Amino acid sequence: MSSAADASSENLNGAVWAQIRISDSRDVPNIRRLIRQMAEFERLTHLFSATEASLSATLFPSPAPPPFRSFTVLILELSPTPFPTSNADGGFSPIVRQLHLETPVEDAEAGEFASPRGGGAVVVGFVLCFPNYSSFLAKPGLYVEDIFVRAAWRRRGLGRMMLAAVARQAALLGMGRVEWCVLDWNVNAIKFYEEMGAEVLPMWRICRFSGPALQAYRLQLHDKQGEAAAKEE
Amino acid sequence: MSSAADASSENLNGAVWAQIRISDSRDVPNIRRLIRQMAEFERLTHLFSATEASLSATLFPSPAPPPFRSFTVLILELSPTPFPTSNADGGFSPIVRQLHLETPVEDAEAGEFASPRGGGAVVVGFVLCFPNYSSFLAKPGLYVEDIFVRAAWRRRGLGRMMLAAVARQAALLGMGRVEWCVLDWNVNAIKFYEEMGAEVLPMWRICRFSGPALQAYRLQLHDKQGEAAAKEE
Repeated sequence: MSSAADASSENLNGAVWAQIRISDSRDVPNIRRLIRQMAEFERLTHLFSATEASLSATLFPSPAPPPFRSFTVLILELSPTPFPTSNADGGFSPIVRQLHLETPVEDAEAGEFASPRGGGAVVVGFVLCFPNYSSFLAKPGLYVEDIFVRAAWRRRGLGRMMLAAVARQAALLGMGRVEWCVLDWNVNAIKFYEEMGAEVLPMWRICRFSGPALQAYRLQLHDKQGEAAAKEE
Repeated sequence: MSSAADASSENLNGAVWAQIRISDSRDVPNIRRLIRQMAEFERLTHLFSATEASLSATLFPSPAPPPFRSFTVLILELSPTPFPTSNADGGFSPIVRQLHLETPVEDAEAGEFASPRGGGAVVVGFVLCFPNYSSFLAKPGLYVEDIFVRAAWRRRGLGRMMLAAVARQAALLGMGRVEWCVLDWNVNAIKFYEEMGAEVLPMWRICRFSGPALQAYRLQLHDKQGEAAAKEE
């Protein structure tokens, strides 16, 4: 955090530029740190086991599928100077917006979250989404698994900017829905999403097989009414 | 429903074979009728707009991605005679189980749901799933969007057989989770899933943009704190 570029990022002030762009494998270290912070925020670090290697292998396979056809991470970064104009990346043109900071924002993590694309930009958040499907509509949609903004940068419309970017892309791709989940006690988040036009479905509950309960099905071909479970493996 | 093959299917009796296999585009007419029945069962026919053309285009694109890497439909069919041995289809070997019917099952829809693969087999259900992602685990999983068994064939362990098939495949692929949704008032289904080893998460709620609320984001690049909405389109 001693370089000039880092110092300029630590105290962004006045006009700054926010950009949402498609990630690539160079973003993996930042993505891992953001997911780690999200686990801390949700007090779920005991469930966190992502490594740079496992994130690279699962989020950035080779060859890379087009964005929004598989797991897709968008990066939100801020810069004290305008971003260079960039071309559409697999059909997604970066979304840029200018912010006006009334007072300097102290970002003690700015050095750690330097953008791999340089230019003094700092990564401040991410959104991870992937296609889902509605059989009634016979249309794909997008499911937002994670949306996260680092603490120093919250309450500035950046989460909204990311969710709107996903919704816009879904609409442009002719998709039918954008869906995500919220905790029922998080009334502020629910109010925020409803103001953005979301419907919160009260009656559906998520069911999950994981861990040993999932592994038990490796060998289980038959139900309880069937013959003995297959033993061929 | 006048052919000999149809007649034999209409009153399956004694030993019958159940098979779960990967679908292909020849299954589209049956898949559409099954989704239509599901909409009727859920009293949501006003949301049903799937056509054979839209299902074909979205579920069976060309080239076909490998199963379980994108939207994947498994077909459940029954036959009075053993199924011919088939090879793994994109890595998924059909799962076959013998059922013993104590009394004949009258299936008035058997003719309509004849299997496109012939042999007197009748399609009785389907499951539609696609990959989801856990960032904490840095692992893909499978999300079960639909699981449906036609009315004549319920309460015979066939739904369980399909869900177990998906869970087994997720475990074999090294995935971290299988997830799906259930209505909170459907206590029988919740009990059934819990007996199968599922955890039902009480606190998460699904949020959704759809219809006009989603379309509104086509033009909306900026949040309310930003400058005027982009008008470039």
